[in-house]
Amino acid sequence: MLKIDTNIEVRYYETDQMGVVHHSNYIRYFETARTLSMKKAGIPYDEMEHQGIVMPIISVACSYKRPALFGDILKVTTILEKLPTVKIEFLYEVRNPQDLLLATGSTVLAFAHKESMRPMRAPQYLIDILQPFFDL
Amino acid sequence: MLKIDTNIEVRYYETDQMGVVHHSNYIRYFETARTLSMKKAGIPYDEMEHQGIVMPIISVACSYKRPALFGDILKVTTILEKLPTVKIEFLYEVRNPQDLLLATGSTVLAFAHKESMRPMRAPQYLIDILQPFFDL
Amino acid sequence: MLKIDTNIEVRYYETDQMGVVHHSNYIRYFETARTLSMKKAGIPYDEMEHQGIVMPIISVACSYKRPALFGDILKVTTILEKLPTVKIEFLYEVRNPQDLLLATGSTVLAFAHKESMRPMRAPQYLIDILQPFFDL
Amino acid sequence: MLKIDTNIEVRYYETDQMGVVHHSNYIRYFETARTLSMKKAGIPYDEMEHQGIVMPIISVACSYKRPALFGDILKVTTILEKLPTVKIEFLYEVRNPQDLLLATGSTVLAFAHKESMRPMRAPQYLIDILQPFFDL
Repeated sequence: MLKIDTNIEVRYYETDQMGVVHHSNYIRYFETARTLSMKKAGIPYDEMEHQGIVMPIISVACSYKRPALFGDILKVTTILEKLPTVKIEFLYEVRNPQDLLLATGSTVLAFAHKESMRPMRAPQYLIDILQPFFDL
Repeated sequence: MLKIDTNIEVRYYETDQMGVVHHSNYIRYFETARTLSMKKAGIPYDEMEHQGIVMPIISVACSYKRPALFGDILKVTTILEKLPTVKIEFLYEVRNPQDLLLATGSTVLAFAHKESMRPMRAPQYLIDILQPFFDL
Repeated sequence: MLKIDTNIEVRYYETDQMGVVHHSNYIRYFETARTLSMKKAGIPYDEMEHQGIVMPIISVACSYKRPALFGDILKVTTILEKLPTVKIEFLYEVRNPQDLLLATGSTVLAFAHKESMRPMRAPQYLIDILQPFFDL
Repeated sequence: MLKIDTNIEVRYYETDQMGVVHHSNYIRYFETARTLSMKKAGIPYDEMEHQGIVMPIISVACSYKRPALFGDILKVTTILEKLPTVKIEFLYEVRNPQDLLLATGSTVLAFAHKESMRPMRAPQYLIDILQPFFDL
């Protein structure tokens, strides 16, 4: 299992008139955390795009437990429980500086050729990079 | 059952470098469609907030089937299959101008007192307004 | 002079914890109003992009006078005072339903070839479409 | 003069279909850089709000020179050339990892009482914190 933490500080424009972070921004935090986690694991997403592979989103979900506030430095944990096949599923946990769980969520992505958008299996080099995390 | 259509035109800033609408924006389309649908049904959300009732989001989900493009006038169908209790669940279907289904989704909201954020049941006047749609 | 009004209804996620529309969204309202105004005048921006012409932003500015609120149907007036050359400048006025002036602003855009991003003059067909508005 | 650098990594959802960061996001980068710079200088904005002082935006401006790309770690320099009075003006310079200047901009903010939104002078403790940077 791969589990990587990313710190994301809440920005002012992400709050709404309820005085808390607008719920749609968690979907964006997930993306930011996922991208930075893949980068840390050795998989830069921009290089994948340059190589003609894109990862369209199949589905997202988020459950909200407590609100995040402006200035909070959130800890977003990105979790990969299984190696990718034709799809890859990321799970997330968002915690605030008091270590309270604010939200959990998930994203399922596919792999596709950039030009044709035809689906493909996860590229072998991606699996090679991820395998060691699952051998532990 | 209540079922209301809302037209939402895709804005340029909602696209990403994949050339399609970024997936996070569907969560925002859902909110816009839900708010306008409730207004059409006779329930202005801003009035509810003035009366001290807020509706925090409990969960959201979205499944993506086809991409939306800049300039598309999307038809977002907001569906309420059950009367609210302590929660209210909205379902959504997003279609493009060619009437192809782009995405489906859902949002669960609770009712809470604005100041204390303590949960409450759906206010009676909300149920009174919605009841006729379920008597048909 | 060309002067076209566009109605834009404030969305919930555009508010911030000050209880008003976050200032960055006016830049997005400008873009939305400009795009819809050009479409009304007969110039669909997506067609220009398909023809290999993009319009990179050179500068933006906005002055804020009064806040916009959730649910406000704003009237954004897009103004073109001069025919485009290598640049095109749009001016904007944003008014609320009480017809109070909320903000004024401007955007300067250039014309460029999509692939090379090399600057170019405004395409002749754009000037042909706009000319009649300046002959009045 | 106060001059503080903030690193901001470009997020995927901030790009548009031109393949670069959408211009409206620079206004948000300015806010993020300004907030973090004030925090570094000893002025947490959330504390000011708790004390009943808000800083409404009077005007913003941005000039774009080169595009920012997904994954770029931008260096945003926040500059304060003068001590605040009834207003405070921040200037910004945005540079990419190759140290090329991408954009310059400015924001003018006022000071106001949170409840009444009546304008006020910059609070004395703000000037006390900033003064040393101008004595150098």
